[in-house]
Amino acid sequence: MSEALSLGERGRGSVSPNPLVGAVVIRDGNVVGRGWHARYGAAHAEVVALAEAGELARGATLYVTLEPCCVWGNTPPCTDAIVDADVREVVFALKDPNPDVCGRGLATLRRAGVAVRQGVLAEEAARANAGYLRSREVGLPSVLLKLALSLDGRVAPPPGGPRWTSSEASRALAHRMRGEADSVMVGVETVLSDDPLLTDRRPGAGAKQAARVILDTSLRTPLESRVVSTASEARTIIACGDRADEERESELRALGVDVWRFGATERGVDLDAVLRKLAAKGRLYVLAEGGPAVATELLREGLADRIAFFVCPVLYGASGGATLGQLPAELSTRRGLRAVRWREIGGDLLLEAEIDVGK
Amino acid sequence: MSEALSLGERGRGSVSPNPLVGAVVIRDGNVVGRGWHARYGAAHAEVVALAEAGELARGATLYVTLEPCCVWGNTPPCTDAIVDADVREVVFALKDPNPDVCGRGLATLRRAGVAVRQGVLAEEAARANAGYLRSREVGLPSVLLKLALSLDGRVAPPPGGPRWTSSEASRALAHRMRGEADSVMVGVETVLSDDPLLTDRRPGAGAKQAARVILDTSLRTPLESRVVSTASEARTIIACGDRADEERESELRALGVDVWRFGATERGVDLDAVLRKLAAKGRLYVLAEGGPAVATELLREGLADRIAFFVCPVLYGASGGATLGQLPAELSTRRGLRAVRWREIGGDLLLEAEIDVGK
Repeated sequence: MSEALSLGERGRGSVSPNPLVGAVVIRDGNVVGRGWHARYGAAHAEVVALAEAGELARGATLYVTLEPCCVWGNTPPCTDAIVDADVREVVFALKDPNPDVCGRGLATLRRAGVAVRQGVLAEEAARANAGYLRSREVGLPSVLLKLALSLDGRVAPPPGGPRWTSSEASRALAHRMRGEADSVMVGVETVLSDDPLLTDRRPGAGAKQAARVILDTSLRTPLESRVVSTASEARTIIACGDRADEERESELRALGVDVWRFGATERGVDLDAVLRKLAAKGRLYVLAEGGPAVATELLREGLADRIAFFVCPVLYGASGGATLGQLPAELSTRRGLRAVRWREIGGDLLLEAEIDVGK
Repeated sequence: MSEALSLGERGRGSVSPNPLVGAVVIRDGNVVGRGWHARYGAAHAEVVALAEAGELARGATLYVTLEPCCVWGNTPPCTDAIVDADVREVVFALKDPNPDVCGRGLATLRRAGVAVRQGVLAEEAARANAGYLRSREVGLPSVLLKLALSLDGRVAPPPGGPRWTSSEASRALAHRMRGEADSVMVGVETVLSDDPLLTDRRPGAGAKQAARVILDTSLRTPLESRVVSTASEARTIIACGDRADEERESELRALGVDVWRFGATERGVDLDAVLRKLAAKGRLYVLAEGGPAVATELLREGLADRIAFFVCPVLYGASGGATLGQLPAELSTRRGLRAVRWREIGGDLLLEAEIDVGK
């Protein structure tokens, strides 16, 4: 199952809104077939693995990270392929929360005489498919909040200080995170101050660029900003408030930008609504890159389910940029962050953790 | 030399104001004698190692972490012992900055026909004896600033939050740090809010307790506080401003507290003066345990030469305790902290680093 999970990872960034799925066919202790769901619309992992196994699939065991589907989508039901291949046993990690499949894939297989076991490495599989599960369960994408902080908790250097808080290696890793997301979200303040491209600029990353999502209540994003001027190359979505200027909206639309309107408060556009719309459009993995206001709102509203904080060996003190604002009390206890992992990246310390969000 | 440095460490916490020194006698590639300076007033490392080697010292090589002394102190000059033992070669790490010794130990040995090499692992030896060197060179002790911070840089939990920011393992390590210091320094706010004992409460630590130093401009330390009521067991020094109440001073003195008066500004007592007085009294290793005001002042004035920051996986947000105040611009660059080491302690991340202080 562990290998099946690794195979599934190969589709990361390419399969949304579908789940990551990997599959392995084992016969007499040997791997005779491997497969993964490679792209949205492409064949499912089980079908690929069974095709590779060919006749050897007969009487074999199929390990797959998600309950096999029993319905027609872009491709025929996997349960048919499994039954046709005369597989003896199916072991899967996670039930599919899709109500058309949930438990019915399992039942279909059993009715056809295939032995079925479930729940193997279910937690790992759930982690790998956080966005898919979250969207199916609560209609929200999985949101990874990325921040670079000084040792004393400041999210931006003091005026005249260094340009970057994090190390070159940390920034390279942050680029890779963009490649694993289908949406990269920032506040307009970040656009105004840094004019970022927000693309994954690693070689070969061009094909599957994440959409850039800018939270911009009053449509202050400059028409000549890099996110706007590259809107034809990578999708650019600006989420604005319902009172934003309509003429400005037209100008942005003319440049290829999607403009979405939402309710807004003094703290900005309704983040919950923005994220629900992204999920509804099949965008299940949002990388939120700050600044401090966006980060605070995501944490405050329980909308970030994962964090990646780069803690950097610099001290900015009171002249450094803002710290995080008011946060939920649960985050102040050690139970607030789960599955905490620390690792050193180019002299910085990266903390990755999950948040048990209320939603 | 590496073994000699390790041996020297055994005296940590017990030899101040003397330096840590370790020594190894090597004959034909074998260790024939080991020694270290164990306590202030006790025999020097070289003498102990040569005594262990006995007749085998003749023609051997002596590795020692500091230039051997050539003057009478509590004990006779080590250079005499070395010459008497008929050692062939002396290899030492660090010149002794003590002007009575510096270079003269070396010259004395050479004059007596002993070969001498110096500078082997000098950097490591300098690190081990930071307090001794610093006091000899600039009249200040080595100051280790210890802080526990939330991931977002807050140094105290929000009201009603958890009692401790750092993990149990981190707090145990902090206790060990007390054992390696000869003085533990806090601001009066810490005494008022936490009423700490500030002792190393590990078994066996009783004998060599660090002095507790409280920065308390107006003598607000309560007479019934634990630091005051235990003043007979471990030395308690209160550094107050020159206008502090004299009657209060008498009451504290009657309870066994040392009260030292210094100039004071609105930011508190003159820290530089406090530290110089500690160094002059032979207190060379100060562990500063905060809070935020003391930490900021030490960093701002360039008085902390080492930091140990426990970064903890909790987010306090705006309702958490203070962050660090205005800091020198050099600390905002990656050159500000040197020899940065990260390690995980019970789920926290400990950053240890050195600061190139101006002084």
